[in-house]
Amino acid sequence: MKNEILVVGSVAFDSIENANGRVERALGGAASYASICASYYANPAIVAVVGTDFTARDKAPFTKRKINLSGLEVKEGKTFHWGGSYDKDFNTAVTKFTELNVFKDFKPVLSEEQKQAKAVFLANIDPELQLSVLKQVKKPRLVACDTMNFWISSKKASLLKVIKQVDILFLNETEARLLTGIYNLVAAGKWLLKKGVRYVIIKLGSNGSMLVSKKGIAQLPPYILEHVHDTTGAGDTFGGGFTAYLASLKSWDNLTAIKRAMMIGNVMASFTIESFSVTRLASLTKRDIDKRLKEYTAMLRF
Amino acid sequence: MKNEILVVGSVAFDSIENANGRVERALGGAASYASICASYYANPAIVAVVGTDFTARDKAPFTKRKINLSGLEVKEGKTFHWGGSYDKDFNTAVTKFTELNVFKDFKPVLSEEQKQAKAVFLANIDPELQLSVLKQVKKPRLVACDTMNFWISSKKASLLKVIKQVDILFLNETEARLLTGIYNLVAAGKWLLKKGVRYVIIKLGSNGSMLVSKKGIAQLPPYILEHVHDTTGAGDTFGGGFTAYLASLKSWDNLTAIKRAMMIGNVMASFTIESFSVTRLASLTKRDIDKRLKEYTAMLRF
Repeated sequence: MKNEILVVGSVAFDSIENANGRVERALGGAASYASICASYYANPAIVAVVGTDFTARDKAPFTKRKINLSGLEVKEGKTFHWGGSYDKDFNTAVTKFTELNVFKDFKPVLSEEQKQAKAVFLANIDPELQLSVLKQVKKPRLVACDTMNFWISSKKASLLKVIKQVDILFLNETEARLLTGIYNLVAAGKWLLKKGVRYVIIKLGSNGSMLVSKKGIAQLPPYILEHVHDTTGAGDTFGGGFTAYLASLKSWDNLTAIKRAMMIGNVMASFTIESFSVTRLASLTKRDIDKRLKEYTAMLRF
Repeated sequence: MKNEILVVGSVAFDSIENANGRVERALGGAASYASICASYYANPAIVAVVGTDFTARDKAPFTKRKINLSGLEVKEGKTFHWGGSYDKDFNTAVTKFTELNVFKDFKPVLSEEQKQAKAVFLANIDPELQLSVLKQVKKPRLVACDTMNFWISSKKASLLKVIKQVDILFLNETEARLLTGIYNLVAAGKWLLKKGVRYVIIKLGSNGSMLVSKKGIAQLPPYILEHVHDTTGAGDTFGGGFTAYLASLKSWDNLTAIKRAMMIGNVMASFTIESFSVTRLASLTKRDIDKRLKEYTAMLRF
């Protein structure tokens, strides 16, 4: 398949409460947001696991977006279920419960076709699983990975091995400081470049994102929204859109492409946070995206 | 004098301690940073008060930048002295002491010449003093004002009267939320527009600044620095540079000019934070500024 991008990570149910309301067992998980977002720029194939409680209705957003689900394993048991709530700032989620269920024993095993993937997005999972995926893929031309504070604290050595092998690393500002022990984000980014990654993308939440690379440093403000509904999945959306856009290019390894990918990641994330779950993200038209990219470009004209 | 800008506010001594070291009784105060920055774009005249301990050496940065000091009253007593320290994030200052001294009874009285000022920057002082300045000036074509949480809490009614009469309001994100009771910054900005101000500029610290106006909304990332020395005066520098740049234009009341003013404010603030006090800010060449503006413009090309 042309411009295929392999997305490895979690597919989950989220039960969320915030200032705008609540939602129960809505489709969530990093691989869901990342792959649905990626589908606007490339052809994603997902590698994940769900339980027997995952219905056709839960699958609908993926099938609607023509995502290859041959790697979505269905295992006896329940799907990963996360419960959390947000304060009015939407930036920090407080976890109420984490029921890993079938995700607890997730071991990504790639098919022969998946091993040929040209682009890979390793969503936020155990860095040891990320390493096992990297061993299986043959010659990807682009590998990006995400992570979180939990893995930085508990499996730093494995995470540093992952970083050595990937082109692009996504992490937020707290994670960048935790992983490097350096407060200044540019200095933290440069530390990570020395560990072998080529482009460090620091996600700044409501303040956009920052790029640190040997080719250049940049900070991009967000696409501004007056009403935010729920920020769950914003970072996963950003990473999935960013990576899929690059995967769609003949040549992705240059500053112009990377900066454009940041814009696309920010714009796609702006849709995700306009609803609970993937509701808004999964129902976009090319026109919706183009309109927002155009407004964004005008906003950035200084 | 051509393109004169009146800067009303505090001239002070700062004793500061942070991760990079400490400084005792260094030149500080909002009007100092704002006027020195403004001097690169217009001819500032300062209205402030100092004590008899304020020496020719303390005046040197102003005279070097050809700032009109006829409105710098020297009063029997000591100059305003602030002491504070910063955590490694540089964003929040912890006040150790505030000795108002002669500043306690500061009452800005403008000369006939000052009353004719075409542009006014009301630095962060008691809103009642800001109102008294607004009563004295005849027909300024541009008035901008800054404020702080202390006045929002203690003199909100007066501050709202000021806002009604100014073209541009500067405040940081915490202050915007405190003043409006609204969390979302765009919504908070729109609330302020209804109160009569034309352009709301929300300072985002290390994340740049945001504009909310009827003509448009924008967020500008900062000029990125790898090493920050001391953030004291960054906001005052931003406001002074922003306002002076607009004062230097034939027509300032349009989105292009306002966005350019944000860029200039951010670039000028990036110099201020490279040293304690006004050391770096007061010793710039046109070449230093142009170089940074050029890099900034390239960084913003997305």
